[in-house]
Amino acid sequence: MPLDQDTPPIRSAALAARTPVVAVVGATGAVGIELIASLESRGFPLSSLRLLASPRSAGRSLPFRGQDLPIEIMDETSLAGVDIALFSAGSAASKRFAPDAAAAGTIIVDNSSAFRMDPHVPLVVPEVNPEALAAHRNIIANPNCVAIIAAVPLAPLHAVNPIRRITAATYQAASGAGAAAMEELRASTEAYLAGRPFEPRVLAHPYAFNLFSHDAAVDPLTGDNGEETKVVMELRKILSTPDLRVGITCVRVPVLRAHTIAMTVEFDRPLSPDAAREILGAAPGIRTIDDRAANRFPMPRDATGQGDVLVGRLREDSSDPSGRSLSMLVAGDQLLKGAALNAVQIAEMLLG
Amino acid sequence: MPLDQDTPPIRSAALAARTPVVAVVGATGAVGIELIASLESRGFPLSSLRLLASPRSAGRSLPFRGQDLPIEIMDETSLAGVDIALFSAGSAASKRFAPDAAAAGTIIVDNSSAFRMDPHVPLVVPEVNPEALAAHRNIIANPNCVAIIAAVPLAPLHAVNPIRRITAATYQAASGAGAAAMEELRASTEAYLAGRPFEPRVLAHPYAFNLFSHDAAVDPLTGDNGEETKVVMELRKILSTPDLRVGITCVRVPVLRAHTIAMTVEFDRPLSPDAAREILGAAPGIRTIDDRAANRFPMPRDATGQGDVLVGRLREDSSDPSGRSLSMLVAGDQLLKGAALNAVQIAEMLLG
Repeated sequence: MPLDQDTPPIRSAALAARTPVVAVVGATGAVGIELIASLESRGFPLSSLRLLASPRSAGRSLPFRGQDLPIEIMDETSLAGVDIALFSAGSAASKRFAPDAAAAGTIIVDNSSAFRMDPHVPLVVPEVNPEALAAHRNIIANPNCVAIIAAVPLAPLHAVNPIRRITAATYQAASGAGAAAMEELRASTEAYLAGRPFEPRVLAHPYAFNLFSHDAAVDPLTGDNGEETKVVMELRKILSTPDLRVGITCVRVPVLRAHTIAMTVEFDRPLSPDAAREILGAAPGIRTIDDRAANRFPMPRDATGQGDVLVGRLREDSSDPSGRSLSMLVAGDQLLKGAALNAVQIAEMLLG
Repeated sequence: MPLDQDTPPIRSAALAARTPVVAVVGATGAVGIELIASLESRGFPLSSLRLLASPRSAGRSLPFRGQDLPIEIMDETSLAGVDIALFSAGSAASKRFAPDAAAAGTIIVDNSSAFRMDPHVPLVVPEVNPEALAAHRNIIANPNCVAIIAAVPLAPLHAVNPIRRITAATYQAASGAGAAAMEELRASTEAYLAGRPFEPRVLAHPYAFNLFSHDAAVDPLTGDNGEETKVVMELRKILSTPDLRVGITCVRVPVLRAHTIAMTVEFDRPLSPDAAREILGAAPGIRTIDDRAANRFPMPRDATGQGDVLVGRLREDSSDPSGRSLSMLVAGDQLLKGAALNAVQIAEMLLG
């Protein structure tokens, strides 16, 4: 879906002139914690940081640059005077608070799915489509974690040799379902190893040494789940290719915080693994781990805590004799490049 | 690869006449234990059971039908008088002991990859290609676990609407790498949860809350690993379709003993999910778990301890507008249908 180029963006005039006031909305969540950490680790220039959350977190505080910042309860007045708000408090909170704040001049980088497919909202992966940002109207959407992690290596290949079709299966970590799901994975595994029963509270299925089709609701007609639909629609928007054919199966595996994706990608013309490796090696935000002799390829353990997307196992797909299809394994930290880091990178672009 | 139909099979004449003497070679391994359990649970008719293993297991015994059977050390004389030997002691042991024993009249059901692609050795999944068994020359191969679990649902669909192409990604359990790998998954996870370091001994990579490309050696030229090559070659042989196009990525996940496979299957003609569900519902060895409203699909936990292959998430592949491609999730117990149970089912067929 192309962005509307006719309407000039409403930009916060203050941003160019001074060091911004920044807010993190949903500060105590798994992504919120990483947003704060990314702002700190990247030395993001800000005059003050405000941490906002739901009443559940009242009275708590979180450290930032050596200080303990109090958690404030989010309401309609919270973003007054805030230049940039990084939202990660779920779609309902984004829909409730973001439009008014944006109209009042705060620029929102929204990690929820609330506005991603809105044609007036840029959906941005800084390494992939930085040019989309210019059209924003004070709301910018941070894509789905799988869409980001897939788009980073797909984009430079697509630019050289257009992608015709993607077939993918995911190995998604607990973190995508939040901090409580990560804790449920730990606790249920501990119980399993001790021979104790465990009743799932966060996810619908047993998680210890188990896996299951992604927990997003399944469309009764198509059979695709909500996660799969997001990835398909968002990849089309990020890659500016509305007719991109994507088939994906999203699966939750017992891994804590990094997603892995097995992809088979069909290109317009033949593309050798070596040529693809060269393109990826020159692209930003990518680290190649592709050692056939040592059987060393991207793993979630490698991706955890890393900002780069890891790519490897580049090889010709043996089911396509035309030489136009490559298979690859991709891994990325769901909380960092899949969420918090990408949002902070977008915010950095706003500073120019 | 078609079996050589010109040579009549050398059958053990004794089998038709009397209750056989059965041996399990590799009795103390993960599959060996399940071979013994399957012989017991299915009431396999045998006059005596002999348990054979390497010198490492000397002095041990294992229970069978209420008795403790001693483990005997396998050597060249061990199979004298044995009618049916179920081998699961690795390729080297199969190559060393099976041909002479077969020549002496013992029928071998071999769980290793040693003879699977031999044109004179039937590669049998009883629900799929029972007719292949007739051509045996006293060695019958039990296929690779992923090939078995995939073939059970693919075969009835292929019979109705020929399969043109399969794109698959696996979620493979520790059990495929043996009992020691299962123990390493448990021990390394325990260590991780306790914050203790753990040095992998069985597998090359950390396994706790991690996953990695399958540990089979990678072909330096194609980039396919040995597991992937087995699955492709064996599916072609089992389905009697030498030109079947299969692209597969095999991944080891932190699950104990059931494999899951995400498959996208392209057929000759359009096939609706409902039509596929009907075909699968009437096919042997399959249980369908496909509840979109409840988000309930096959999981390794469901498959563990079950003889059936579980199939679900049947849906049209959204990347193929022709309606000729379906996606599905398949799960099966690696040690049972993927290995021991399939071997015992083959042995049952030998009894007629």
